[in-house]
Amino acid sequence: MNFSSKLLEDAVGEFARLPGVGQKTALRLVLHLLNQNNEDVARFTQSLNKLKNEIQFCKTCLNISDNEICEICASPKRDHTLICVVEDTRDVMAIENTSQFNGVYHVLGGLISPMDGIGPTDLEVDSLVKRLENSETKEVIFALSATMEGDTTLFYLHKRLKTFDIIISTIARGIAFGGELEYVDEITLGRSITTRVPYTNSLSR
Amino acid sequence: MNFSSKLLEDAVGEFARLPGVGQKTALRLVLHLLNQNNEDVARFTQSLNKLKNEIQFCKTCLNISDNEICEICASPKRDHTLICVVEDTRDVMAIENTSQFNGVYHVLGGLISPMDGIGPTDLEVDSLVKRLENSETKEVIFALSATMEGDTTLFYLHKRLKTFDIIISTIARGIAFGGELEYVDEITLGRSITTRVPYTNSLSR
Repeated sequence: MNFSSKLLEDAVGEFARLPGVGQKTALRLVLHLLNQNNEDVARFTQSLNKLKNEIQFCKTCLNISDNEICEICASPKRDHTLICVVEDTRDVMAIENTSQFNGVYHVLGGLISPMDGIGPTDLEVDSLVKRLENSETKEVIFALSATMEGDTTLFYLHKRLKTFDIIISTIARGIAFGGELEYVDEITLGRSITTRVPYTNSLSR
Repeated sequence: MNFSSKLLEDAVGEFARLPGVGQKTALRLVLHLLNQNNEDVARFTQSLNKLKNEIQFCKTCLNISDNEICEICASPKRDHTLICVVEDTRDVMAIENTSQFNGVYHVLGGLISPMDGIGPTDLEVDSLVKRLENSETKEVIFALSATMEGDTTLFYLHKRLKTFDIIISTIARGIAFGGELEYVDEITLGRSITTRVPYTNSLSR
């Protein structure tokens, strides 16, 4: 692209480094911000600087938090004997939005992915093991993506945790609510038949 | 959404105000930036602050520029008697990328759009008229979008400029290069037949 200004080019270049944002989108976003008030742009950049400088990771569950211990881990209303292991903050938010889980979390910070050079030591596995040693955890629920990386991580974690006297479970896989049978992929449909559940169990939502 | 951190919520809120960016995309972008080095994030916000504070608009053509007069207007290689009127900076960049235009520009800063409350006084029309009065312009080319707003603006500008002794032209409309006839919309195809050009003219690219 042929920029009329070096300042514009720099800003567009920075935006274009964001995931899923190309040069054209970056230019559109930058020109939008350029048309905003000075205060709006200052608030935009300040919110980002503040986030980057002041954000903390909960010492217990490693979730993004404003304090040393996050609200979920600090809450006495939560069941601290039930730990849900997730990949990242977005998964915590997704599960919290369901209002179906009353335990606490452990954020791995990623999934094992040899292709991307991410091994078990890059994840918060040791902290999970230490946490299980020092607490009265009854059950660990794995809520990981149903991908190759998720399954690999699940397999590894199960091996690491099987010496503990706790229940290890994973979230149910199957056909989504509202999903039509004919559009479901074969693996999901096949597995959902082999792992069928008694009708009365399926009602307990 | 259920944010675990107020800082995160603020930053996501700011990103979600950008055009075409929803809450989920905003969260993805913010978490991406959170995973970057401090320097990368600082460079990101600084480039934006610098752009906002130091950017200028060329005193002649009103295009975005690093200096009082933009490079195009300051260039002696350009034909200053030929002015191309465009909506915004992106159009200048698009035309510059073609390398087919050697004149100078005039950036209107928008198009007349009664639906959005944008009238002729909100655009740089008076500055264009003043520029024509004080210069030896031979031709004004309108390169505006082929939309209702573009046509309205074109109609208004033509009325304002017709007292000047200059050639007024618009960029050619028709079927795009590489376009297949059967997929072209009816209006474009119909107009391209009524405004057909001699074959020899169409070769002069």
